[in-house]
Amino acid sequence: MKTSPLPDRGFPTDEFRTRTARIRAGLAKAGLDAILLTTEPEIRYVTGFLTRFWESPTRPWFVIVPLGQEPVAVIPEIGAPLMGQGWITDIRTWSSPDYDDDGIGLLARSLRGLVPDSGRIGVPDEGETHLRMPLSSWSHLQKRVGGRRFVGDGGLMRRLRMVKSPAEIAKIETAAAIAGRAFDRLPEIAAEGVPLQTVFRQFQGLCLEEGADWVSYLAGGAGPGGYADVISPASARPLQRGDVLMLDTGAVHDGHFCDFNRNVSIGSASAEVRAAHARLIEATAAGFDAARPGQRARDLARAMDKVLTGGTGTPGRLGHGLGMQLTEPPSLMPADDTVLRPGMVLTLEPVLALGEGRIMVHEENIVIEETGARWLSAPSGTEIPEIGA
Amino acid sequence: MKTSPLPDRGFPTDEFRTRTARIRAGLAKAGLDAILLTTEPEIRYVTGFLTRFWESPTRPWFVIVPLGQEPVAVIPEIGAPLMGQGWITDIRTWSSPDYDDDGIGLLARSLRGLVPDSGRIGVPDEGETHLRMPLSSWSHLQKRVGGRRFVGDGGLMRRLRMVKSPAEIAKIETAAAIAGRAFDRLPEIAAEGVPLQTVFRQFQGLCLEEGADWVSYLAGGAGPGGYADVISPASARPLQRGDVLMLDTGAVHDGHFCDFNRNVSIGSASAEVRAAHARLIEATAAGFDAARPGQRARDLARAMDKVLTGGTGTPGRLGHGLGMQLTEPPSLMPADDTVLRPGMVLTLEPVLALGEGRIMVHEENIVIEETGARWLSAPSGTEIPEIGA
Repeated sequence: MKTSPLPDRGFPTDEFRTRTARIRAGLAKAGLDAILLTTEPEIRYVTGFLTRFWESPTRPWFVIVPLGQEPVAVIPEIGAPLMGQGWITDIRTWSSPDYDDDGIGLLARSLRGLVPDSGRIGVPDEGETHLRMPLSSWSHLQKRVGGRRFVGDGGLMRRLRMVKSPAEIAKIETAAAIAGRAFDRLPEIAAEGVPLQTVFRQFQGLCLEEGADWVSYLAGGAGPGGYADVISPASARPLQRGDVLMLDTGAVHDGHFCDFNRNVSIGSASAEVRAAHARLIEATAAGFDAARPGQRARDLARAMDKVLTGGTGTPGRLGHGLGMQLTEPPSLMPADDTVLRPGMVLTLEPVLALGEGRIMVHEENIVIEETGARWLSAPSGTEIPEIGA
Repeated sequence: MKTSPLPDRGFPTDEFRTRTARIRAGLAKAGLDAILLTTEPEIRYVTGFLTRFWESPTRPWFVIVPLGQEPVAVIPEIGAPLMGQGWITDIRTWSSPDYDDDGIGLLARSLRGLVPDSGRIGVPDEGETHLRMPLSSWSHLQKRVGGRRFVGDGGLMRRLRMVKSPAEIAKIETAAAIAGRAFDRLPEIAAEGVPLQTVFRQFQGLCLEEGADWVSYLAGGAGPGGYADVISPASARPLQRGDVLMLDTGAVHDGHFCDFNRNVSIGSASAEVRAAHARLIEATAAGFDAARPGQRARDLARAMDKVLTGGTGTPGRLGHGLGMQLTEPPSLMPADDTVLRPGMVLTLEPVLALGEGRIMVHEENIVIEETGARWLSAPSGTEIPEIGA
């Protein structure tokens, strides 16, 4: 176990006060009286409440940010001690699970107390969100808030969360440095004859050794001259000479993700693979160069696609936001006209089709600053590394 | 890296045909024409689709099980190769994310083609479920299915998923064996002076070394004579003599969880801690002895509570279902009258309040068989293990 010191945990209360003030300003602008939050990242964004207990789908959790008052947590009793360690002081609990009323009565009463009778309560309802409560509870809730109405939040949470604070960026950068050190140690675990399953398992171990709190995501692939797919679990197939091995990890530090990958060749890389890797790095650099305030998400996709296809268009997206979740808005694709702003953290993720169902993907993490982009992951070189060549 | 052979991956197609036939029988009984599934475990239950890509909240995924036809997957293009490796043959895709229509048009057309005009489409809507799509998409979908109506599934998926097949039980048992070997190695990593954060990180490494595919859950605590809370992330506080250290893990093997814990004393345990541990083991045994077909979930809670409090009632629940998720129905608590059936996999999770905000919790995993319960985790002995005593 390396014992390099890690940055402090959590955020100063000011961070949450700033976030809450921005939410309130957004509510005022949108004519909303409150916002109701139900998912892990939304609730953590306001409260700092960080726990792996969300892995259990059993209990619903709620946070209300009213226009003119401090946030109110309406949560299962089991969460009260941890929530109480943070900055939220109005914590209302019930004993969950409750088969008669799993928090909806308490939530409805709270909303009636915090929101005027004919008030409008925003709920995130756009892409990349969902409502984390049973549909039957949602139905009951709507009937129990009197004249108050639930409406979409108009993308308020999306817009706010896209721009990260310096403290958030530091955590993402720490996560990226941890994964970077694990990637540097790939030659310790990847070699001809080692099953891909074993590589996946040991790579997660390396991330933990290098300081990850946990490893919420590891994907990848391996195959001769490229891989077919980047979302399948690892197979038991042993690595072979001529394989391109790709690992893509979302390692977590203090609740914040990195999301980048590395390609390596098992044995000598073919000319095609070497050229493809160089092209991916060139595309990534083009995305990096295009990334500055005022440009749009689609401009980065176009800059990368120009290198990849000469500008005929790459299907799917070529990167995305990153932070408290592995993937966040915006999407680097032609349809996304999000204007880049300082503080946005993005992945650049160009992909090349190599024929016969083979692809190669590269991914790095960047942050938008006043004058351009800055790497959060230490960017790969042009040459694909070879293991055992 | 140990290289003990692991059981085969996945399930034979018959497993999914049986599950689907049971869903169809349930639909017929409930007067439903189809069921719409949107979450990871529901979709995997029908299709076998296993990927960590669900960590990305960006894309919605849908599976329809119609009354009289094979299941239909309506999914983002990026998932087609992996879904195509399974038994589902009707796979309909769109290029996601799509800001104009992220799959709702295709889903609505599919439902119109598969469900009669005035048909009823079930959606899981009870406790421990949610609808995994943006609320705005849900709103659009309801308007685009003609005379068809969405209604609750009446607990159909809950009832079916509570009873596990022998193949599922074998996977959960493998996960429990992996975690059991990791717990046996706790003395390698836990000692006076080691920060709890380090113990957490290294314990996840042990689970991986012992064969876990990934470690989706690790909670726990450490404190003098007990711990305050079992859902907080690990702190940097070094373990001290007299601490009770508890680790509770959900290690994953082939998409199936274990969920049990171990308590150890750092240095000699006090008489109070030794007695509490013995009481927890006794309560667990009482739950085990009460667990047989025909008994109800609440009967197990009562049997454990009788040992814990003499029958005055322990707050919260004292165990729960387990399988494709860390926690599943039923809940071992007075309000849950679920009748136990062979194939149900449960945790027994008694808790003791020790005063001054200190608690101790013990947890084991069992399966209900024809004549009684069988341990899936190798049960702890009465004596709390001492490290460095």
